[in-house]
Amino acid sequence: MAKEKKVTFADIAKYTGFSKTTVSRFFNDRDSLTLENQKKIQDALDVLGYQENKLAKVLANGKSEFIGIIIPNLYLNYYAEMLELLLSCYDQYGYKFLVFRANSKEEVERAYIRELQAYKIEGLIVLSHTIPSQELAAFQIPTVAIEREAEDICSICVDNEEGGRMAAEHLIEDGCDDLIQVNTFFPQSSPAYGRITGFNQACHKKSRQPVLIQAEFSDTYESIQQKIAEIFEQIDEHYPKDHIKGVFLANDTYASMFVKQILRKYKEFPDTYKVIGFDNTRAAQECAVGLTTIAQPMKEMADQAMELLNLQMEMKKKRIPETLDKPVHIKISPSLVARETA
Amino acid sequence: MAKEKKVTFADIAKYTGFSKTTVSRFFNDRDSLTLENQKKIQDALDVLGYQENKLAKVLANGKSEFIGIIIPNLYLNYYAEMLELLLSCYDQYGYKFLVFRANSKEEVERAYIRELQAYKIEGLIVLSHTIPSQELAAFQIPTVAIEREAEDICSICVDNEEGGRMAAEHLIEDGCDDLIQVNTFFPQSSPAYGRITGFNQACHKKSRQPVLIQAEFSDTYESIQQKIAEIFEQIDEHYPKDHIKGVFLANDTYASMFVKQILRKYKEFPDTYKVIGFDNTRAAQECAVGLTTIAQPMKEMADQAMELLNLQMEMKKKRIPETLDKPVHIKISPSLVARETA
Repeated sequence: MAKEKKVTFADIAKYTGFSKTTVSRFFNDRDSLTLENQKKIQDALDVLGYQENKLAKVLANGKSEFIGIIIPNLYLNYYAEMLELLLSCYDQYGYKFLVFRANSKEEVERAYIRELQAYKIEGLIVLSHTIPSQELAAFQIPTVAIEREAEDICSICVDNEEGGRMAAEHLIEDGCDDLIQVNTFFPQSSPAYGRITGFNQACHKKSRQPVLIQAEFSDTYESIQQKIAEIFEQIDEHYPKDHIKGVFLANDTYASMFVKQILRKYKEFPDTYKVIGFDNTRAAQECAVGLTTIAQPMKEMADQAMELLNLQMEMKKKRIPETLDKPVHIKISPSLVARETA
Repeated sequence: MAKEKKVTFADIAKYTGFSKTTVSRFFNDRDSLTLENQKKIQDALDVLGYQENKLAKVLANGKSEFIGIIIPNLYLNYYAEMLELLLSCYDQYGYKFLVFRANSKEEVERAYIRELQAYKIEGLIVLSHTIPSQELAAFQIPTVAIEREAEDICSICVDNEEGGRMAAEHLIEDGCDDLIQVNTFFPQSSPAYGRITGFNQACHKKSRQPVLIQAEFSDTYESIQQKIAEIFEQIDEHYPKDHIKGVFLANDTYASMFVKQILRKYKEFPDTYKVIGFDNTRAAQECAVGLTTIAQPMKEMADQAMELLNLQMEMKKKRIPETLDKPVHIKISPSLVARETA
């Protein structure tokens, strides 16, 4: 490996004929130079093979341009797609993303955030549910939560209650005899809890009795598939064959698995089942039968999350740092995408 | 936001009763202290609310513990799963991962790597195909490529030729009349090219004539699905109805889409089609019919990639930095996972 030579401001000044002050301005206040002079210096850097040391700059001005992203997993399409959308914001903002895959171990996640703090990250996007927002707020890093409990930090989420209502109303219009929701256990502080209340309210409004099946879903694909298969068997055995069973599931991945179980048993998708997923991820497109689902406007959510984070970051970087008076919470309306399953 | 107080080594020394030298050793050579004394200092840090400034340390010793990962996309399950496996190595190595989603724009990717270099990243894992390995080598960062052209850098890949052979032999044993491979266009330097030669060789060995259908697949899910639908129609119209058509596709995502087209047309999976995918990702499990596939041992590949990268990073950090004499290339054997489609 060739020896790396250190190119100094003096070298650049000598090569271009500019003063060292001018070269320094190129790095610290580029727009104060004419475009022509900027280009001259840029060309010199390329020719001389100058390597900028951003860390030294970060130490001086605190602007690391690092953003931490904490994501629970990548096997649920929702998280993989949201991560892809967030990473794609590099083009627009130039921020570099440090990604951590949370494994629900609180201590590891906490240690990781502390580490990020030591590296002077400027912002944090949290999709994991591990650490309460009160504790996240105490880290004093500009933070945005996406679809998780966020009492003490800024957040973006879909209007889950509205989503639950939409699903129930659609299943009732579809002539379903039974209205069943399949979901995980979560505290009432979780935004997804709104789906349960929304679904139930819409049913009660039409004097219908909703059924809620809650289950623990662990975090491997195989075990989730196994659990969904059990729930399908339970529903299929319990309800009369000729009833139209309307089933609203926690996400498209689960809904897709449920449809797969129906197809395994009945070969074709029968008129006696109506299935609705949530998110409108690629799991919905990949489903063997076009999956009806409640769509989260994910691109809009990713964009708004970045905007809200950037706002806080900019405020913190002011000569006299500012913070928001209280956390901003943005709720975005979902929409129903009707395909073949309902 | 409360004012952050700066806790100094002197504060820690005063609180614990240790000398400043001992406190300094805690940060720079922790193992030289007894476990008991380490704990005393750690407790003091927690009580005093000490914030380590890792950047200052990195500037001093060059060990940023940052690794860059460049990934083409997250909509192919292969990349999402490989990224998840790599990120999970944080527990073992403590490295922090800066993730960049390549969008095939060479200039953006190049600029990003230069930026990472300015942040003193210690290693790079490249899954994108954008920049030639010769150019990547010139960055002089310890690098490992996974499943991509890697003449001038270390690499991990599956034995693609062996995979192609396995697929052909399985389809021939299955009594297929037609042996068709569906793949993308790529240069012979790409490891995946081995699948084409392996498939063809195995066919010729049994005096059978393979057919290769190559197509441009763009990088959105919808357009790939559209292309696969066209290819299915083309095959289904061209070959006699009663022929057993053996189709080997570039990855499980494409194979899953192909199976979906078959099911749309024939309702049940017919005896006249045999389909094999590649990778054994969750796309294979999600497929409406159990998808037969050539499995890449992804966990093993991720582990070996990290090991090979770590080796190079350790060599570079020695008092007299060392590099490998030449790039190490590791090839891992695939295996056939037989399910329902072949």
